[in-house]
Amino acid sequence: MKFIITDSYEEMSTVAGQHLLGYMYQNKRVNMSITAGNTPMRMYEQLVPQVKGKPYFDNVHYYNFDEIPFKGTNELGVTISNLAKSFFRPAEIPEERIHVLDENNYETHDARLKADGGLDVILLGIGADGHFCGNLPNTTQVHDETVAVPTTPEMREVLLGEVGGDATKVPDFYVTMGPKAVMQARNIIMFANGKHKAEIVKQAFFGEITNAIPSSILQLHPSITVILDKDAASLLPEF
Amino acid sequence: MKFIITDSYEEMSTVAGQHLLGYMYQNKRVNMSITAGNTPMRMYEQLVPQVKGKPYFDNVHYYNFDEIPFKGTNELGVTISNLAKSFFRPAEIPEERIHVLDENNYETHDARLKADGGLDVILLGIGADGHFCGNLPNTTQVHDETVAVPTTPEMREVLLGEVGGDATKVPDFYVTMGPKAVMQARNIIMFANGKHKAEIVKQAFFGEITNAIPSSILQLHPSITVILDKDAASLLPEF
Amino acid sequence: MKFIITDSYEEMSTVAGQHLLGYMYQNKRVNMSITAGNTPMRMYEQLVPQVKGKPYFDNVHYYNFDEIPFKGTNELGVTISNLAKSFFRPAEIPEERIHVLDENNYETHDARLKADGGLDVILLGIGADGHFCGNLPNTTQVHDETVAVPTTPEMREVLLGEVGGDATKVPDFYVTMGPKAVMQARNIIMFANGKHKAEIVKQAFFGEITNAIPSSILQLHPSITVILDKDAASLLPEF
Amino acid sequence: MKFIITDSYEEMSTVAGQHLLGYMYQNKRVNMSITAGNTPMRMYEQLVPQVKGKPYFDNVHYYNFDEIPFKGTNELGVTISNLAKSFFRPAEIPEERIHVLDENNYETHDARLKADGGLDVILLGIGADGHFCGNLPNTTQVHDETVAVPTTPEMREVLLGEVGGDATKVPDFYVTMGPKAVMQARNIIMFANGKHKAEIVKQAFFGEITNAIPSSILQLHPSITVILDKDAASLLPEF
Repeated sequence: MKFIITDSYEEMSTVAGQHLLGYMYQNKRVNMSITAGNTPMRMYEQLVPQVKGKPYFDNVHYYNFDEIPFKGTNELGVTISNLAKSFFRPAEIPEERIHVLDENNYETHDARLKADGGLDVILLGIGADGHFCGNLPNTTQVHDETVAVPTTPEMREVLLGEVGGDATKVPDFYVTMGPKAVMQARNIIMFANGKHKAEIVKQAFFGEITNAIPSSILQLHPSITVILDKDAASLLPEF
Repeated sequence: MKFIITDSYEEMSTVAGQHLLGYMYQNKRVNMSITAGNTPMRMYEQLVPQVKGKPYFDNVHYYNFDEIPFKGTNELGVTISNLAKSFFRPAEIPEERIHVLDENNYETHDARLKADGGLDVILLGIGADGHFCGNLPNTTQVHDETVAVPTTPEMREVLLGEVGGDATKVPDFYVTMGPKAVMQARNIIMFANGKHKAEIVKQAFFGEITNAIPSSILQLHPSITVILDKDAASLLPEF
Repeated sequence: MKFIITDSYEEMSTVAGQHLLGYMYQNKRVNMSITAGNTPMRMYEQLVPQVKGKPYFDNVHYYNFDEIPFKGTNELGVTISNLAKSFFRPAEIPEERIHVLDENNYETHDARLKADGGLDVILLGIGADGHFCGNLPNTTQVHDETVAVPTTPEMREVLLGEVGGDATKVPDFYVTMGPKAVMQARNIIMFANGKHKAEIVKQAFFGEITNAIPSSILQLHPSITVILDKDAASLLPEF
Repeated sequence: MKFIITDSYEEMSTVAGQHLLGYMYQNKRVNMSITAGNTPMRMYEQLVPQVKGKPYFDNVHYYNFDEIPFKGTNELGVTISNLAKSFFRPAEIPEERIHVLDENNYETHDARLKADGGLDVILLGIGADGHFCGNLPNTTQVHDETVAVPTTPEMREVLLGEVGGDATKVPDFYVTMGPKAVMQARNIIMFANGKHKAEIVKQAFFGEITNAIPSSILQLHPSITVILDKDAASLLPEF
């Protein structure tokens, strides 16, 4: 485990982007799974001008690692829509290098990744509840590969927000790479910023490995880098 | 996870040895942690003439991953004594490339491994109870690095056997790399032979990840190879 | 450069085969280019029973690195025929994992290798004249990738022997990966045995890099292993 | 060979620095050999604030690959002085991670690099005459490892400039990693900018490999990346 403590969200974003670029510059096909959400917003803003229109990144293939489908429509799901908006569209990544995970193909996602050579790197955020990807507490189990997670009454409100407030679009399940699927990536990067993440970062990486904090399992990966701003790192022990 | 099903204990031994040799032939320092016990006996017999007196293996460093000390003596512990007898002595490995883990240095073992560049590969057996290294059910926890495990009344008989039947030599604790320490190795090889291992192999690698079967956690490693004879593989699902 | 000096042709064959197995056991597609000729005969005899019928080697793809076509026929060329006889057929390697280089496709060989992910390893012999693959003295140039080499009067007799003595089958050219193409492999293994190779091995690896000894260029590769029996190594300086 | 064509010197500098950062972020000791001179000036300006005071780069060790000593003094040589000024001092790299090559230790430089684990990456510029490091046309030979190059009358003027115009300080020889030593690095990065480099870049990477253009030998490396601004790339064939 390597910890990188940066001074600010801006610097965290730069350092995370540089990690991705380090993989992307390799002279071989590179498979990356990258995260949507708030944490990566600035990183994508920084990366877009560095990636857009650059033929030397034609070797890079993108995968999303979870998806919240809109019920009863053919629209693209929440995750891939967010990724498209914040990165794929402004960076002009062609569709053939974007490998969508969704409610129709999640059962073959692990086999497809394996056939494609496996993930070189997966970039993850961490939720204040310790979740990563769609692995919320009390949803998936450690040995789950890519799975569907049924919607529970407790989740309904969150999912309602994710689908834009239209109750008819709340799906009956979402899909996610489970802990076992994520752990198969050759390298993991997790990043977090802000004081509201400090407690969970401490628990996830310096506490016990427990189902109550799903991301604590990532401690076991032989090649994980955790990139934090100083606020998110503020409760860590000295090291 | 890669599974290799061989026809016999003889072939399992050959294939496991070839895996080690594949690492050993690299033109760089190679750190390996290898197992004592019954499973590797034939592998070591095959390896000894291939390793003894070969200057091109001077790059290989050996570590033991657990130890049962003899109480009240200065003798070498059970594990390192077994390794010395079955491999280090007949293969004439010089002491400076044998890095002993014991009751005196276990607290610095993880830091030493890190300073030495980490383990390139760890070779593990599996117990009929699902244990690996000294991680017996209900002893270590998943997040344990290298730790001391206190002797419990239930263990006493096994430990008595290990120390040769002299009750005064049963130690108050043994030491072992815990699950988290083992998972840091860049590559893991596990091997097993015999019908008596078939059920636990199935449970460990095709069942749930559970504390009741310590080696089930190894499913999460991104680079693990499981080498079995056909008896140990006889209960696996087709694949 | 790593040198491995073995006691005999038998041991040289075993060690070379173990090197190949070390690559083959990886849990990913592995691209290997392997040599025909006399040097590897015993190695293939040893490998055949270890490879035949083993599904865990389904990840391995084979390429030949040179070819002498039979003129005026549709027969397979000399190199691939020899490889088929000594290894592919007895080891029952399916055709879809054998990627033939021949007089029809040599111009696209480098692009195909690149698209397939490049060679993980290339196994080479060395001629008494210092040639490797079809890079005889005064044929290819260092910057040649895969090329056709026109038949010269001096070569005719050798080629006549290669095609079995029928003068009508001597081709107008043969094809080979040139020095630049070979050097693109991530790893190179060269092996040699016998006193008749001792002088050229010394010159190639401990002398000047010169066009007169084509294999001397291999000194420049960052990951090359040279496996010799003691006769072939008998003129090397102490090291 | 991977080519990266950037729009400007500024972007070339950013991309080259990102390549170095990609290596530096690894969770292991990283050995880099980096270049002095004009080409990297902006790259170092960009890197300094990213490296200065960052404990997560404590794993990075720096080596210089050539040196022009000042005759008759104990001063640090030209190369290491320039590196210190442009990078080591402003980035506050501690001395124990700066491994100086000079007139006193060049004969053991290759052995030291090997003992330290070899170079992960070497960053090179290219001279308008095709030189890299101190490998000027008609000085070193392809098979040279780290060597001393005697001062010739033709070099005297250049060297006089390098030592600041004081004729008494022109050394009798300078030292450099030769082509064979450079080629041992696991990865090579070469960068160039400006129209005055366009012709030599074309010749070095798309022409014959010849002693007249020392850097043309780098075509043979299995992992080289060439980073250019559009001016330096202006004469390259379409690809």
